[in-house]
Amino acid sequence: MIDWLIPMAQKIGFIGTGVMGASMAGHLMKAGHDLMIYNRSPEKARELIQSGAHWCPTPASIARQSDIVITMVGFPQDVETIYLGDQGLIASAMPGAILVDMTTSCPKLAIQLAETGKSRNIEVVDAPVSGGDIGAREARLSIMAGASESAFKRCLPIFEKLGRIIVHQGPPGSGQHTKMCNQIAIASGMIAVCEALIYARKSGLDPEKVLKSIESGAAGSWSLTNLAPRILNGNYSPGFFVKHFVKDMTIALESAHNMGLDLPGLELALCSYRRLMDTGSADCGTQSLYRLYENGGL
Amino acid sequence: MIDWLIPMAQKIGFIGTGVMGASMAGHLMKAGHDLMIYNRSPEKARELIQSGAHWCPTPASIARQSDIVITMVGFPQDVETIYLGDQGLIASAMPGAILVDMTTSCPKLAIQLAETGKSRNIEVVDAPVSGGDIGAREARLSIMAGASESAFKRCLPIFEKLGRIIVHQGPPGSGQHTKMCNQIAIASGMIAVCEALIYARKSGLDPEKVLKSIESGAAGSWSLTNLAPRILNGNYSPGFFVKHFVKDMTIALESAHNMGLDLPGLELALCSYRRLMDTGSADCGTQSLYRLYENGGL
Repeated sequence: MIDWLIPMAQKIGFIGTGVMGASMAGHLMKAGHDLMIYNRSPEKARELIQSGAHWCPTPASIARQSDIVITMVGFPQDVETIYLGDQGLIASAMPGAILVDMTTSCPKLAIQLAETGKSRNIEVVDAPVSGGDIGAREARLSIMAGASESAFKRCLPIFEKLGRIIVHQGPPGSGQHTKMCNQIAIASGMIAVCEALIYARKSGLDPEKVLKSIESGAAGSWSLTNLAPRILNGNYSPGFFVKHFVKDMTIALESAHNMGLDLPGLELALCSYRRLMDTGSADCGTQSLYRLYENGGL
Repeated sequence: MIDWLIPMAQKIGFIGTGVMGASMAGHLMKAGHDLMIYNRSPEKARELIQSGAHWCPTPASIARQSDIVITMVGFPQDVETIYLGDQGLIASAMPGAILVDMTTSCPKLAIQLAETGKSRNIEVVDAPVSGGDIGAREARLSIMAGASESAFKRCLPIFEKLGRIIVHQGPPGSGQHTKMCNQIAIASGMIAVCEALIYARKSGLDPEKVLKSIESGAAGSWSLTNLAPRILNGNYSPGFFVKHFVKDMTIALESAHNMGLDLPGLELALCSYRRLMDTGSADCGTQSLYRLYENGGL
């Protein structure tokens, strides 16, 4: 090995090769990056390995040899486990490395990780995304970054491989806070769509015609245009899972309460979606909220 | 007068020349229609009269000489007063005439007017609009019609002078029901926008940057694109008045309850907007809901 004699490309690690992560890691490989990958369920990494990614047995082993490590996992607890502790990314990473959590997670945790990283000269960036599996597949994500100026600059060439709208929102935590704004807007927006549709049906209207009248005006929204037609076709398969949305809204509401902020719309949405989970819809798409209205289960 | 010897253009009456009505009546005149007009406050009709409209002293006097009468007034009570009773439009109109209420009003009342009209061979059409003062001015309204097939056909050439999206939603009442769907979707949509923005501000983000990250994705909506920037500029002047929105939501909620339908999002919005009215914001724009969040008055 004479790697040390020639200028090396940045070594990138990628942890979490689920639906979103696999697409994102794939884009980085296509862009020519040499990728080390890890996933809790190794079978979900198989395709990337076949395409040339290097499998590593633990997050720590990735951290020890990467300039930048990207994580895209499930829940804040997963983020905590991967980043903190003796075998965590922060303890294992090379000084000067950057760790980028793209999971939707707690703003408070993001700030804590960034603080913890400082003592070892490691920058931790929060950069959650919106755009879903399609956005990830088509490299059209919106990436909301919380980072120092310098860390953001170093991440930008990578972000540009993954997304189309890339905004440096502010210091660590700002990315997660921005994602919370996104989820808060979606939350009451879903109620808006479901209530308009159930009213349309109950009053004997043809909901397709109603959409024609209302979707391009002041009642219009991404959800009305994209999810209302699925509802009308009885298509409740997931673009975005109910269980993930409940996770996000739970973080948002807790974060709001920590700021002394009362968000009754978000509270109503979270409460409704939790009830929906109880009826066995955790793995359905968020548009299945409509069924709660249909069944009078509010 | 030898009018009866030559084919006459349709005689059109227009009642209610407020902000919306004045623009609409103006379009009909520009299209060559000879217009008879009435308004409760005559001074608001002055400009149209100067442009050649004929002032009539009462709604009844308009009805007696019109093939089609359009009404665009304020509240369901106003509609009731103008249409019903000895001096009302239905009692005064010529058999075969069409009466078109474009006010946002009760679906139940629309059905009642249509039924009442039948006995005198008068068709009553409900055709509320969305698009606001700008939509009216630019003849770009969305017109949602509840009417018999034949009445809709007779009205269509007129609607085409006023709007761009014209949908025959079904029998009488269907236009008002569709407008209720529109207002229901806007109601929770406004909560979505205000809660996302207040969270952005409280968490120390720059809300303009947040909009950049979220407005073109799944959180996007007409309200987020058009009203959030006004909120951020502290511009609470009315596109759409709080007091009118409260009227509409009150009708929608009552109508929903009549169908045994529970709409908690609409209820939350109505309750919040009523509180906003109590703080003296009746004549502000609907985006002023944000101030309630800002003042912690929820």
